[in-house]
Amino acid sequence: MFLMPTLLTDTKLFLWVDLEDPTPEEARFVLEEVFHFHPLSIEDCVIESATPKVEEYTPKEGDQFSPYLFLVIHAVDYSRTDGVFATNELNFFLGRNFLVTYHSLPVRGVQATANQCLRSTVHIARAPDRVAHTLLDNIVDNYKPALEELSMEIADLENQVVQNPTKEMLNKIVESKKEVMHLRRIIGPQREVLSRFARGEFKLIRAHLVPYYRDVYDALYQFSERAQGYYDSLTGILQIYLNISSNQTGEVVKLLTIITVITTPLMIVGTWYGMNFTHMPELDHRFSYLLAVVLTLGSTLLTFWYFKKRKWF
Amino acid sequence: MFLMPTLLTDTKLFLWVDLEDPTPEEARFVLEEVFHFHPLSIEDCVIESATPKVEEYTPKEGDQFSPYLFLVIHAVDYSRTDGVFATNELNFFLGRNFLVTYHSLPVRGVQATANQCLRSTVHIARAPDRVAHTLLDNIVDNYKPALEELSMEIADLENQVVQNPTKEMLNKIVESKKEVMHLRRIIGPQREVLSRFARGEFKLIRAHLVPYYRDVYDALYQFSERAQGYYDSLTGILQIYLNISSNQTGEVVKLLTIITVITTPLMIVGTWYGMNFTHMPELDHRFSYLLAVVLTLGSTLLTFWYFKKRKWF
Amino acid sequence: MFLMPTLLTDTKLFLWVDLEDPTPEEARFVLEEVFHFHPLSIEDCVIESATPKVEEYTPKEGDQFSPYLFLVIHAVDYSRTDGVFATNELNFFLGRNFLVTYHSLPVRGVQATANQCLRSTVHIARAPDRVAHTLLDNIVDNYKPALEELSMEIADLENQVVQNPTKEMLNKIVESKKEVMHLRRIIGPQREVLSRFARGEFKLIRAHLVPYYRDVYDALYQFSERAQGYYDSLTGILQIYLNISSNQTGEVVKLLTIITVITTPLMIVGTWYGMNFTHMPELDHRFSYLLAVVLTLGSTLLTFWYFKKRKWF
Amino acid sequence: MFLMPTLLTDTKLFLWVDLEDPTPEEARFVLEEVFHFHPLSIEDCVIESATPKVEEYTPKEGDQFSPYLFLVIHAVDYSRTDGVFATNELNFFLGRNFLVTYHSLPVRGVQATANQCLRSTVHIARAPDRVAHTLLDNIVDNYKPALEELSMEIADLENQVVQNPTKEMLNKIVESKKEVMHLRRIIGPQREVLSRFARGEFKLIRAHLVPYYRDVYDALYQFSERAQGYYDSLTGILQIYLNISSNQTGEVVKLLTIITVITTPLMIVGTWYGMNFTHMPELDHRFSYLLAVVLTLGSTLLTFWYFKKRKWF
Amino acid sequence: MFLMPTLLTDTKLFLWVDLEDPTPEEARFVLEEVFHFHPLSIEDCVIESATPKVEEYTPKEGDQFSPYLFLVIHAVDYSRTDGVFATNELNFFLGRNFLVTYHSLPVRGVQATANQCLRSTVHIARAPDRVAHTLLDNIVDNYKPALEELSMEIADLENQVVQNPTKEMLNKIVESKKEVMHLRRIIGPQREVLSRFARGEFKLIRAHLVPYYRDVYDALYQFSERAQGYYDSLTGILQIYLNISSNQTGEVVKLLTIITVITTPLMIVGTWYGMNFTHMPELDHRFSYLLAVVLTLGSTLLTFWYFKKRKWF
Repeated sequence: MFLMPTLLTDTKLFLWVDLEDPTPEEARFVLEEVFHFHPLSIEDCVIESATPKVEEYTPKEGDQFSPYLFLVIHAVDYSRTDGVFATNELNFFLGRNFLVTYHSLPVRGVQATANQCLRSTVHIARAPDRVAHTLLDNIVDNYKPALEELSMEIADLENQVVQNPTKEMLNKIVESKKEVMHLRRIIGPQREVLSRFARGEFKLIRAHLVPYYRDVYDALYQFSERAQGYYDSLTGILQIYLNISSNQTGEVVKLLTIITVITTPLMIVGTWYGMNFTHMPELDHRFSYLLAVVLTLGSTLLTFWYFKKRKWF
Repeated sequence: MFLMPTLLTDTKLFLWVDLEDPTPEEARFVLEEVFHFHPLSIEDCVIESATPKVEEYTPKEGDQFSPYLFLVIHAVDYSRTDGVFATNELNFFLGRNFLVTYHSLPVRGVQATANQCLRSTVHIARAPDRVAHTLLDNIVDNYKPALEELSMEIADLENQVVQNPTKEMLNKIVESKKEVMHLRRIIGPQREVLSRFARGEFKLIRAHLVPYYRDVYDALYQFSERAQGYYDSLTGILQIYLNISSNQTGEVVKLLTIITVITTPLMIVGTWYGMNFTHMPELDHRFSYLLAVVLTLGSTLLTFWYFKKRKWF
Repeated sequence: MFLMPTLLTDTKLFLWVDLEDPTPEEARFVLEEVFHFHPLSIEDCVIESATPKVEEYTPKEGDQFSPYLFLVIHAVDYSRTDGVFATNELNFFLGRNFLVTYHSLPVRGVQATANQCLRSTVHIARAPDRVAHTLLDNIVDNYKPALEELSMEIADLENQVVQNPTKEMLNKIVESKKEVMHLRRIIGPQREVLSRFARGEFKLIRAHLVPYYRDVYDALYQFSERAQGYYDSLTGILQIYLNISSNQTGEVVKLLTIITVITTPLMIVGTWYGMNFTHMPELDHRFSYLLAVVLTLGSTLLTFWYFKKRKWF
Repeated sequence: MFLMPTLLTDTKLFLWVDLEDPTPEEARFVLEEVFHFHPLSIEDCVIESATPKVEEYTPKEGDQFSPYLFLVIHAVDYSRTDGVFATNELNFFLGRNFLVTYHSLPVRGVQATANQCLRSTVHIARAPDRVAHTLLDNIVDNYKPALEELSMEIADLENQVVQNPTKEMLNKIVESKKEVMHLRRIIGPQREVLSRFARGEFKLIRAHLVPYYRDVYDALYQFSERAQGYYDSLTGILQIYLNISSNQTGEVVKLLTIITVITTPLMIVGTWYGMNFTHMPELDHRFSYLLAVVLTLGSTLLTFWYFKKRKWF
Repeated sequence: MFLMPTLLTDTKLFLWVDLEDPTPEEARFVLEEVFHFHPLSIEDCVIESATPKVEEYTPKEGDQFSPYLFLVIHAVDYSRTDGVFATNELNFFLGRNFLVTYHSLPVRGVQATANQCLRSTVHIARAPDRVAHTLLDNIVDNYKPALEELSMEIADLENQVVQNPTKEMLNKIVESKKEVMHLRRIIGPQREVLSRFARGEFKLIRAHLVPYYRDVYDALYQFSERAQGYYDSLTGILQIYLNISSNQTGEVVKLLTIITVITTPLMIVGTWYGMNFTHMPELDHRFSYLLAVVLTLGSTLLTFWYFKKRKWF
């Protein structure tokens, strides 16, 4: 750690310092005393929940730091916890011959890049802008499983809604919708940040590496398009769910109506001839009961046929 | 195949290489060893599901390739499978005296252009920017049948919904809506790509060909306008469907109410005179049954007339 | 017709050629052999259903045409057929000393302009940019009756919906909404085209005529604002319609409930004392029937009063 | 009136001509013969229902007018008639030493400004750009009462909807929504016009007056923000209205169900023991009627308690 | 107070004047006679309910003031009153060696900054642009508790809606939605204002302080993103609420239908054998009552089983 100041003076070398959950003293030592970064970028780095952004710091008279890019990026965690994408903030200080990464939680993209660096020192490890690209590429790649999981979850929801919509499903749909919008809001500013790299805005990124950054930008663009597609799907699922649920009430009312209408002839006849008037000549006729039976059965069958014809059941 | 390097040195000639589902070795040989394309464009070419885009590659010191445009375009397949537009990715490498097309599935636009080239060598085949235009024109033309099919499907849906809305129709409408939005998202970035050609941004496309590219752009613009029109139609159909479905429940409730109200007088009289009180003077009167019949029939007809007047049936 | 080539050489004169539904040979002769227009603009002119647009063609080495503007504009037909605005495509070739108009159907704006030209040769007929303005002005003016008709139709719909909403009305509302959006999509690109004239972008339009073109643009702007207003009105009408329709079901259910609740006391008493238990002391009391009558009437009036108080009818 | 030409030649003086509903001859005389305005601006001035706009006219060779701004602004009338904001068109011709205002109806802002001019000749009356600012300020100020009235109307609606929603209220809400959108569409283009003044685009407005125009722009900006707020409120009120109305139907159905369920035990017992079978041993038992009474009352109380527990009433 | 004019002449010193609810005379004295601010900025400062904005005033010939920025910012109050965020307007006059703040109510951010100034004179108090930054930072920080409270309120609402939705909840949801939109409309123009600082547009803010202003801008950006997230949550909650409420009616109808259907067999049998025909052979059979009991019970159990199978309860 105390070698860093001397290493930095050697312009042939390139230094990558990864600070994973450092103590405040470590952070202060590296960021302030070794690299002399601008106090504002240090503050943004140390506090959590910063917006993804990129800022160019060029030294003014009296400043001890060499020009660098300060970059805040959000990595997305694969195993979503509590139905919300867990995002890890990752801070970059990218200079001409150094790269400082700072994160309070282990980020898989960083580990993967470190491995790649150790394995193939020739290709990547020579320049900080190359390593930074590999890091960004790995981090953006890690969005894929999160999107896949979301995709599967939505397909699941769609099947369940069509087959057997329950009350709990609405919560799930609304929850997924919120997640997708959250994801889009995560991707949005990062796309913005990377579009600045893709346009080759920064001199610290050498021109022949710009297409590589554009590639990362393209991936992010595609992810946000996919997220938009998920959003549309969920809107459709919600519409189907609400309609099925309203259709069910319609079916229940239909059943009630059918039962009421079909039993109506019987009820009319039954109630009417249950009256106790002394003079009800029909009651004493021999075949009047038979007639009542026939009449009742007949009109019941008639209403039955009527409903059948109108395809009520 | 081994003639290509020599053919390329002849600046008078123009070479079109079409790679249809090549083996990795073939692809590597052509793209890397013959044309020495930038590794990033080769990677974008070989992987699938890239976003439509156009990138200009100009050689820097040490690069072996001559300047070229790298273009990713999505062709749409006519016979839609599984209710989703099948899109085939088509990659272009467009240089001053060469055109390399790469696709993993047969694309009809490519076949059509090849035929046109063989037939009329004079007009098209002389320059890569002309062939590229013909290719793009053919591919964009292939969107037409897909749009036609969609248009007919929507007209069908509209008729069915108005005549006899069933539960399955909602799924179809939502599905079609998703398709249309998918189509718009396919067309969107391609329009973006072609607008750059139409503005004459690239020097590899000769100025007098720019109006031709603008024509392809116009066609895409119109397609996306039509897709927007389809979307509006489907929103209208959905609204009609949901309303018809809610109207049906309203009708069922109406029927229930009519039956209940119409039988109410009879039920009142019938139930009332079914009581077994010893002292019910009306029961023994001579004409009280007749009166009951008249009263019941009268009020039934009255409610009947009331509903008729309010146009309930 | 064979005079045209000679007429064109006279730079003092100005030639307006109106091709109304010409045969392919006529079109080819005029567009290709007399004026030598760019093949692409000829193609766009001859095919139908092109997007409104304006393109500037400046001759390059070897081109035989003099600089001209190619303009596609959609005229709207007054008597709308089948609930859809009929649009007629009108193509302009506007040069320094010629104006060629091409349309397959008679356009009233063209006829009107021709009449104006014949009547007042001094003011308009001298220059192609003046005639073109008059043409555009006449065509845009023809949107007014279409908008008026739409406006009246919407006012009609509003009245009908509030007074007596029927099932067919929903279709009409949705249909009108689609029409209005269609109209906006027609006006949109034309406004775009005319805004380029209004900004004085083209050198073929003399500076002192630009305010006149700006005037046409203003009219189109106002039309699209009015169309937006119609759209809002229709959204409001739809909301009222859907609410009235749902209110009706609510009223029906209310009626059902009122009838059921009001007859309940009678049904309870009637059914209860219709029982045939041997030991029902109440049945034999002298005034128990009277009591039953009073009780039933009393509670019926009570429920009646209750509904009256809660303003159910 | 005939002094105007001579007055205009005196460059020290400033002339404000207000044409309120002039005869065509008066208008022609002032606009054409005294000021020689561009015929297009005269036409826009005379016809009604022009869009708010500002146009700069600079004389070209042969034009007799001095440079001027032509401005169309809509004043809003306080006492809204027929639920629609009445707008009065006000046309300005603003030159270096003259201001011509033209309106067919009396506009209070003009009257107020005239009074201010007469009272304090020093401050305002000296320059046309100052008077124009005062005029615009007064006109924009007159939007305030209209907004206040709208605000009160919306607060009223909100109270009424929460307390006692009637069927007529929906019409009112939809009507108010349309009004607010209409108002926003009125304010929109005027804001656009004034933003051009606020940016100091016109040389006829002296630089030190630009902040004053920016002030008028700020007021318009705030008004359109408030209109947006009203729109959101009305959307919320509509949602509450629709929900209350659907809740009422729910309540009615609840009542129906409660009555039906509560009377069910009595109906079962009553109907069952009304049967006339010869062998119904229960009928002759001594305490069976008592049992029936107890059973019926018991289950009725049970259902009653059940509904109470589930908080149905 | 009378020292101010003399203090101002000392260019080494920096003067911060805080006017908290001054009398009109005080305000006039400081703003007009000491600093000679532009009358328009004084007016904007004194009136209430101005839009957040920043304006640069540079003295012209005859003006007595030195260049300054006029800034209107809205502070948000922590303890929201009446369900609406209370905003306090805070006006800044920021010059090279002075800062005048004007507010009619006590603003906590101002108090906090004053304390910071008194405590650490070295860091902040030296320059007006530093103090202004600290002020803005403190004010923007005060948005946090308001956002936290809103966040908790929304979480509360969500829980209540899922557990026990009452009628009052709809009002609360709609109210919260309005609040969130109000908050977004408050933040919006302030973000706009601060983005101009963050871009380093003003010369009065020294270049090395621009990143600090960018930091304040970032915070506002994040707040408006969070507000957007709250809005989405509330839309989801509303959807769940409306669905639960419609589901409840569905449940009620289900109960009604179940009761009706289950009692139907008993009603049929009971009503039918309550008829008084003389010749009803079934009535006199020995086991016919038993049969009736068995039949009724059987079909009742059957319907019961049917509903159980279809999971109606």
